[in-house]
Formats: sequence, structure tokens, C-alpha cells
Amino acid sequence: MSLLVVGSVALDSIFTPFGETADALGGSAVYFSVAGAMLHPVQVVGVVGDDYPVDELERLAPRGIDWSGVERASGESFRWKGKYSYDLQSRETLETRLGVFAAFEPKLPPSARDAEFLFLGNIDPELQLGVLAQVRKPKLVACDTMNYWIQSKKSTLMDLLSRVDLLMVNDGEARELSGDWNIHRAGQWILRHGPKRLVIKQGEYGALMMDRERTFYAPAFPLEEVFDPTGAGDAFAGGFMGYLARTGSTTEENLRRAMIYGATMGSFAVAQFGIRGFDALTLADVERRAHAFRMLTHVDMAEPIA
Amino acid sequence: MSLLVVGSVALDSIFTPFGETADALGGSAVYFSVAGAMLHPVQVVGVVGDDYPVDELERLAPRGIDWSGVERASGESFRWKGKYSYDLQSRETLETRLGVFAAFEPKLPPSARDAEFLFLGNIDPELQLGVLAQVRKPKLVACDTMNYWIQSKKSTLMDLLSRVDLLMVNDGEARELSGDWNIHRAGQWILRHGPKRLVIKQGEYGALMMDRERTFYAPAFPLEEVFDPTGAGDAFAGGFMGYLARTGSTTEENLRRAMIYGATMGSFAVAQFGIRGFDALTLADVERRAHAFRMLTHVDMAEPIA
Repeated sequence: MSLLVVGSVALDSIFTPFGETADALGGSAVYFSVAGAMLHPVQVVGVVGDDYPVDELERLAPRGIDWSGVERASGESFRWKGKYSYDLQSRETLETRLGVFAAFEPKLPPSARDAEFLFLGNIDPELQLGVLAQVRKPKLVACDTMNYWIQSKKSTLMDLLSRVDLLMVNDGEARELSGDWNIHRAGQWILRHGPKRLVIKQGEYGALMMDRERTFYAPAFPLEEVFDPTGAGDAFAGGFMGYLARTGSTTEENLRRAMIYGATMGSFAVAQFGIRGFDALTLADVERRAHAFRMLTHVDMAEPIA
Repeated sequence: MSLLVVGSVALDSIFTPFGETADALGGSAVYFSVAGAMLHPVQVVGVVGDDYPVDELERLAPRGIDWSGVERASGESFRWKGKYSYDLQSRETLETRLGVFAAFEPKLPPSARDAEFLFLGNIDPELQLGVLAQVRKPKLVACDTMNYWIQSKKSTLMDLLSRVDLLMVNDGEARELSGDWNIHRAGQWILRHGPKRLVIKQGEYGALMMDRERTFYAPAFPLEEVFDPTGAGDAFAGGFMGYLARTGSTTEENLRRAMIYGATMGSFAVAQFGIRGFDALTLADVERRAHAFRMLTHVDMAEPIA
């Protein structure tokens, strides 16, 4: 089943206690697609400026990424510069230059309009709505957002949320959107105001998936070395949606499996700088890690004690 | 199999955004035993002053708690006064009065020396060592500690850790003890310097159990209402040790089950002020909650995809 992502294709300059990169491939659509393509081909819609190293993108195409929907506009590409704290628990944005992304109006190529699985990366909710209107009959639509849109375009965002199947945000965003610090109440508030399902990412603690009745918890992988948390959330989304597109099923049980594959991809993303965690990664590696994830919470409860 | 806890029997005055209590039953041994006794009889060793409402303790005895090892000394009981932040994420100690606890030298009654499961609550590591020396042939010894002892008595504490089977601390304590902010490296450092197993509690995120090869993750229960986090860690320990004593097994699989019962008891502890979360609680309630915990991470991975 076809999988489409719309989001940023950017150049990231990242400072961590372990090193730095300058103008490296990044952006939500890039992290999403390198992770997602481990499981299923991904079609990308986005925009780059005429300074973008397009050959580097094309080198990733054989992994199963179709970049033909990435518009090449005249001007500078989207650039983000950020610095992490010594323990990687917080980061500071040093610079954001929207460049060609400021005037971006996503236009889906005809082949993308039949996408069955659609991920709306973190862009202006008006653009997310515009993309959604161009897709004919998706089987599952998930979206991301961020504090900036919650603050500046809340009513448009709420309109979008009532039209998608699943919202995927981090805990701070869920708290800000709902105005409630208790993450479970925050989640239920969001579910009452929009999507049928919600995934809340909690960084090194893992991620929750909720609907009105149930909560599922996928832990984060116990990593002794984390080099660069950038893109972990988008890699999670890529693994999650890639697994759904690969299997074609959106049952609760399959969504839980997708959470494990999302967490798996997040764990590969943070183990190297930028998208390098996916270089030379095989499906067997992914499968081994997913199994290890499964064992992390595995417990056979035997017979009840009462 | 017999279960013994040594720890504080205190009077707590707690301020939360939802209300306050004054001189309520508290202390590590009290929280441990009300939780543990849901699963297995508990014998308590501790000390109270002549101002302690001993009748309130005795009213809990029919639940399966043997208070006969609690010494009654002349003087004031141990008192703790604390205030939580609006989101219960942090707390400030307003007052600690050790009272009779300052001169406490635990002496085990003869019946306690044959204890098979021993929990050394958070007291001076010299006293914890003293208790350990009085127990003949325990099957499993677990202990708690806190930043105060890590800072003031580290070498005694490290001596203790080399003699116990399991250390149970929160993430901040694990970081401080090891000097490493990465919780998984911190855990491995601790395991190289002492106990064979380690449980790291992460508050609202759940708890990890580690040995040199494996990590197990038990999430926290998705609670929309948390009233008072006091004692959650001791209730966790009570559920964990109570389950082990009830079942008599210390296999990896049974320790994982014990983690679920520990998390279960922690979730009851925080849902009410003080120890009230255990009033009227039945074994069937415990079993229902443990099952719900199990479902929180349950995923059937079906066949491998690779």
C-alpha cells in the first residue's frame, strides 16, 4: 500500500557534546523516509532550494525513496541550527532559516493523490489541510505538529485534527495543546477534540498510544550511547507508518506492532549523527532490534494469584 | 516464605495542590508493609517514639502486618514534612525531625532472623549492614538508599551493595551514585560495583530492572488523577517483595512478574493521600490492575517480517 510523507527537506547544523555537523541532510520528511523505507517504499513531497545537495538525496533513492515530488525552487533551502545540552535532555535552536519553505505550497503529483497511508509532517496546519484535500481516499492519515503552530494557528490546527486519524506529538506539545499537565488527561482532551488515536512521544522514556478506551506503552530502547536525538520523532513516525503500509492493516494489534517498529527506528536514529544511523542497516537488523524491544516488556503472567 | 522489612515508621505532613495531611502514618516500612501485605504477611522492624499513634498501626495488623518488631523508644517519633509542586513533579522537604530514629539500632527479634526475603528500607547504610548481619540465610536481600547516604557514607554504602542481591533506587539516585547521567550506563556501573540486579524507578514513566545482560521495563499506570506521590517507591518495593515471598521464586521470569506487582502497588499508593489507597483494596482489585498493566505493553508480534 502506498505511503506518502509531506514535510521539510532541510539542511541541519547540529552541535552535541560528541561532535558537530554542518549543512547535513535533515528535516522531518528526510528522517521519516530513511526510516520508513526500511520497511516500505516512501514517496516524498517537499521543497528544496537551488543550493540543496540533490545528489545526496538521489543517492538514498535506491533504498526505496521516491523524491520526484520534491519541488526545486529558486532560493535558499530550509536550514536549522541547534545545540544540545551535555546530557542531550534539552536543546536550543540557534537559527531557523525557512528559505524556500516560507512560500511552500505542496502540490501532490498525480501518483501521490492515491496514497493510502499519509503522514503530514510538522508544517503549517493550513498546508497540512491543503495536502489532505488533495489525497483521494487515504486509509490512514497521521500528522505531527509543534508548539509554534499550537500557539499561532490553534483553530486551524484543531480543524485539521478533526480530519486526521492519528496525531503524533511529544509530551510537551500534548500538554500545551490541551492545557493540562497530566499526560493522560491531556491525551483524552485531544481525543475528545479530534483524532481517534494519539501517539505521545516521551523521548528517552518511550511512547504512548491512546484511544478513548486503551493505552499502549512502548518503551525506548536502553541505549548506553546516544549521539544525536535529532529526527528521532520523525524516524519513529517513519517506522510506524512504514510498518502499517507494509502490512496494510490498521487493527489495534497491528498499530501496537507499528509502535514497536517506530520505537526501533527511533533507536537507530539517535545512535549516530543525522541520518547515518540508517546507513548499512538491514531488515534483519531491524527485526533483531524489534525483537529485543518486544523482550524488554515481555512478561508471562502465568495464572492469576487471586 | 517469610518477608521482613526494616525501615522508618514515621509521621508525615504532606502538602499537595489537592489537600494536606498532618502527622499521618508514613515512612518507608509503613508504605512497604501496607502494599506488601496485600500479597504476603510482612514482619516490620523499626522504631517509634512515645507519641506515636500505635493503635493506628495495630489497626493495620489484621491485613497481615506484624508490628511486634517495632521498638517503642522514649522521645519523639520520626517526622517528615514536605510540599509538592503544582504538577507533583517535584517536592520540597520542609522539615525532617529524626527523633528516636537518630539513635535507632535495629535489633531483630529471633523470629525475624530466619527471614527469607529481606528489604532494607532507606536508612543509614551502617544500620542496613547491621541488620543484614543478623539475618541467617536470606534467599533474596534488596535495599534502598538515598542521595544523603550516597553523599555522606559512600564507602559504607558500596560495601553494603556488594552484599545485597538487588538495589532499588530512583533515577536521580542511580545517576548520583554512578556519576553518569545516562541511566543505562549508570545502571551497568552500579552492577559492576555491587548487586546482581538493579531496579531503577522513574516515577510517572515506570521502572527498569537490569542485570548485566538484560533490561526489563515496567511502565507506570496511566492515571488521570494522582493525589500524593509520597510512598510510591516503598509501595512498589512492597509489591515487588510481597510477590516474591508469596511465590518463593527468584527466577528472571518471576522477578519480571514481581515488577508488575510492584508497579501495581505504586499506582494504588499515589491515587490517595498517604496509605489510604490501600484501604478496602482487595486481592481481586490488585489482580485486575496487574492484568491491566500487562495489557499496557502487550503486543503479539506475529511472524517476523524479514
